[in-house]
Amino acid sequence: MLTKADIKFVKSLNEKSNRYANKLFVAEGNKSVIDLLRSKINVTRLYTNENWLNLFANLVGKNTEITLVSQIEMTHLSNLQSSREVIALCKIPELLPDVNLFKGMTIVLDTLQDPGNLGTIIRVADWYGIKNILCSKQTADCYNPKVVQATMGSICRVNLYYVDLPEWLPKMKQPILAAGLEGISAHKYTFPKDVILVIGNEGSGISDGLKTFIHQTISIPKVGSAESLNAAIAASIMMDRYTGIYE
Amino acid sequence: MLTKADIKFVKSLNEKSNRYANKLFVAEGNKSVIDLLRSKINVTRLYTNENWLNLFANLVGKNTEITLVSQIEMTHLSNLQSSREVIALCKIPELLPDVNLFKGMTIVLDTLQDPGNLGTIIRVADWYGIKNILCSKQTADCYNPKVVQATMGSICRVNLYYVDLPEWLPKMKQPILAAGLEGISAHKYTFPKDVILVIGNEGSGISDGLKTFIHQTISIPKVGSAESLNAAIAASIMMDRYTGIYE
Repeated sequence: MLTKADIKFVKSLNEKSNRYANKLFVAEGNKSVIDLLRSKINVTRLYTNENWLNLFANLVGKNTEITLVSQIEMTHLSNLQSSREVIALCKIPELLPDVNLFKGMTIVLDTLQDPGNLGTIIRVADWYGIKNILCSKQTADCYNPKVVQATMGSICRVNLYYVDLPEWLPKMKQPILAAGLEGISAHKYTFPKDVILVIGNEGSGISDGLKTFIHQTISIPKVGSAESLNAAIAASIMMDRYTGIYE
Repeated sequence: MLTKADIKFVKSLNEKSNRYANKLFVAEGNKSVIDLLRSKINVTRLYTNENWLNLFANLVGKNTEITLVSQIEMTHLSNLQSSREVIALCKIPELLPDVNLFKGMTIVLDTLQDPGNLGTIIRVADWYGIKNILCSKQTADCYNPKVVQATMGSICRVNLYYVDLPEWLPKMKQPILAAGLEGISAHKYTFPKDVILVIGNEGSGISDGLKTFIHQTISIPKVGSAESLNAAIAASIMMDRYTGIYE
């Protein structure tokens, strides 16, 4: 049975401080929850209905608790406008980056602030098989419900690490690139096989404290008149250009 | 002086039917409004303060009426959370496509529904100098305030036409491509110089009524596991791949 305390607790996880205090995040919707159940991430509780459970019981591990809820109760739990069949509470993975194992392209997010941009970058990284994203501690939290939703399940296949970037970047052995407005054209540049790509903040770009670590700025050629490209679009085009060389 | 009727009227333009009944749309924020004042689009009225006007009076044409408003009044007019310096009412351009004049890449949007996606596609098209976007009548309205905002001024440099696509596509002489999950790799395909690229609906892809007009499906190679790419990301990568051939 769903209690008021359940609703209050699930809603409390909209706040980053509560997520990390409880080491839990919320995922909504069929696609995301099924992907999470199939992943290594520990799903501690499901709020759902019998109908959904009959269809997907085989995916649910014995350590996952289940609370059956009505459609109306679901609307109290959900952050989404359209009603959903299932909401999951999941353990936030405690990942420590082992940068010596990072292969291929690694994305670094330098104070990326928009949850939609972060979710998009995680989804696109998953599309291109990019496994590791290092984020500054000021970057939007990837367990924000908006981000989880925007990743469409990719959150469980891409490793995100929140670290002190000025401490970690010098440990990386790969060349460190930054996406920027002025630099070598991404259309002409041969990306190294193992490489770091830094994406800066939506408004202010690469922060001053990181500029010293950048070996090369890569730009997306502009033919028309828009002043800039959105950070998620720029990151996606860079990932596509990288993939085009090594696929 | 700002009246209640002003506020009611500006707010009424959030509704598509009211925008088209009055042939007016709303643009907010410095960058968008300055781009619009510099463009061919007719800005009929500005809501702003003396400070802004002192800085940008040289951009304001004699047919633009001006209403001075306080910061608090601005919050009543605005759709945005952070307060803005200027809001413009602009004439919706009445454009008829002359498809024989379309050069380079033309984007066709088949029932694209998310305003954010539409705004992003317009901005990216502007970045790559793509001038013309044909939209099905079921596509999100480009004069929706969220779309105008997301284009960051590019709305005044890209021509958008809302047409009956099954009637217009057969008039096009260029090869008609569609972005899809299965087709020739965008990394290997030589896009023709003059070409149409159809982007389908976020959920259901290319509509059945248009499939018959598609000469070739182009896909973005998937290396990892995400089920799909967002429509705006897919469109952006296609525009980038096209541009890489002809820049």
